[in-house]
Amino acid sequence: MTAASSAHVAAVDWGTSNMRIWLLDADGGVVSERRSDDGMAKAGEKGFGAVLEAHLAAMHAPADIPVVVCGMAGARQGWVDAGYLSLPAPIAGFAKQAVKGPGIGRDVRILPGLSQETPPDVMRGEETQIAGAASLGRGRHLVCMPGTHSKWVEVADGSVTAFRTAMTGELFALLAASSILRHSIGASPAQPAPDDETFGVWLDRALHHPEALTSLLFRIRATGLLGELSPRDAAAALSGLLIGSEIAAAQPAGDPKRRVVLVASGALGSLYDAALRRAGHAVEPVDADAAVRAGLFAAARALFFDGGPA
Amino acid sequence: MTAASSAHVAAVDWGTSNMRIWLLDADGGVVSERRSDDGMAKAGEKGFGAVLEAHLAAMHAPADIPVVVCGMAGARQGWVDAGYLSLPAPIAGFAKQAVKGPGIGRDVRILPGLSQETPPDVMRGEETQIAGAASLGRGRHLVCMPGTHSKWVEVADGSVTAFRTAMTGELFALLAASSILRHSIGASPAQPAPDDETFGVWLDRALHHPEALTSLLFRIRATGLLGELSPRDAAAALSGLLIGSEIAAAQPAGDPKRRVVLVASGALGSLYDAALRRAGHAVEPVDADAAVRAGLFAAARALFFDGGPA
Repeated sequence: MTAASSAHVAAVDWGTSNMRIWLLDADGGVVSERRSDDGMAKAGEKGFGAVLEAHLAAMHAPADIPVVVCGMAGARQGWVDAGYLSLPAPIAGFAKQAVKGPGIGRDVRILPGLSQETPPDVMRGEETQIAGAASLGRGRHLVCMPGTHSKWVEVADGSVTAFRTAMTGELFALLAASSILRHSIGASPAQPAPDDETFGVWLDRALHHPEALTSLLFRIRATGLLGELSPRDAAAALSGLLIGSEIAAAQPAGDPKRRVVLVASGALGSLYDAALRRAGHAVEPVDADAAVRAGLFAAARALFFDGGPA
Repeated sequence: MTAASSAHVAAVDWGTSNMRIWLLDADGGVVSERRSDDGMAKAGEKGFGAVLEAHLAAMHAPADIPVVVCGMAGARQGWVDAGYLSLPAPIAGFAKQAVKGPGIGRDVRILPGLSQETPPDVMRGEETQIAGAASLGRGRHLVCMPGTHSKWVEVADGSVTAFRTAMTGELFALLAASSILRHSIGASPAQPAPDDETFGVWLDRALHHPEALTSLLFRIRATGLLGELSPRDAAAALSGLLIGSEIAAAQPAGDPKRRVVLVASGALGSLYDAALRRAGHAVEPVDADAAVRAGLFAAARALFFDGGPA
């Protein structure tokens, strides 16, 4: 990292619960990084503009630095509704549709999400990770982006052509905390290690019987009632079932063992890597943090440095 | 109904959130009925014995009336652990394994649940409805018992041979109240009418793609974001998806259109009746309230009137 004065652009990934800001130099290199829980929920109360300015000031960002934003700041209930681009959506065109962040006397551009008409689906933020994953520029790819709402994306010749969402992360949190499974899992569910045997066994169950998910969920409880199942194993079982269901539903009918580009970071990335390989997929990992940063920088270059979009 | 003095036995269906007591005459006829929210949760705090005595007193039950109980009062965290009977479990033998309700100077017998070893599953309360459904005494039957934790039960020649649980009702409540779908469904989700078109459309989606449940759930949200979906329709869609998944998972591989004995009451019974017929099943409806009462009375007769179990 170098002095803040070398920063050319601020890149913001604004999620529902968290936000991240990077100051980037003229080549997209990281000058500094800041993470906060000022996600859409909190920022909506404090005011998005004020939150952004406070973080930029704390980072000693140059006074007139332009800002590019992806994620929930562009949702209907966010800062300003940045809308959705329809499919097929050429990756190179995402930046052109950015909207201005209103009313803070600074050049802020908020990137749109993507929407699919049939069947209905939406994403907001993940499209910028796709734009930043260099390997997706050519050819056909099946992309897995795990999270609260995991995305499985078809990319062909530089365009997003289709995607589907699975509520995996949200279901894990909800079932672990508030369903009858909480009696088995306890108060602090841990994410299983990638080589956790219980995770693997329950993953296989969901891969083989994805149609039986709501029964398999109850089986976790019954297993604990009729024998021994530690809180750790119960959490691993739940994680295995939900990730297994997600993978099973996303497997293309004609080519079930297709190579998957896994855009993820940290422990969740390692867990999905193991799960996808166990399900028979070859995996090409892409770091999600680096991808979103690269996608934001590409948008900034198009918006601010190349004279703006045509 | 007749005077309380004609009551021979009190029959109690003690659930997690609610309880029902009937005073029954020597032929099993209803002398009086009482419903309360003194389910396992509340009764555990107040004391099961005290709660039972208070309700019996309010009903002017004869002082020495014996009591037969099914349901969560017999759970490990209930009044006394009545255990589980293993499969295959002959229906006629359920009462023999009842345990005594402790310490209130009254003859109280609590019926056991059923447990299945492979795959692990449990029921507690539904077995008494099965015992009370006269049509299940002979032949082979597939029984659907919808609810918070729906049960699908195989009965052959008077024995329960297998069952599976689906967390349908619990998932509906949890997803409607606490997931992202709450933004689509609103604060007071209504149960759809049996002929609700939206319910039927989403039921079909789950029947055709039960492996995609966690994606179909998110599709409810996306449909609302990209177009129009009223709170009423969003609730109907969620109900359709979950009931459709349950039915799809329970359809026997060799005989997908098998006749189903539907043990249910009221609006939920009508909804499942419509759903099962739409999925191609012939349906034989059995009233769940009458069935549990008949099952409790059959147990009482074996325990108290025939000189007790052998």
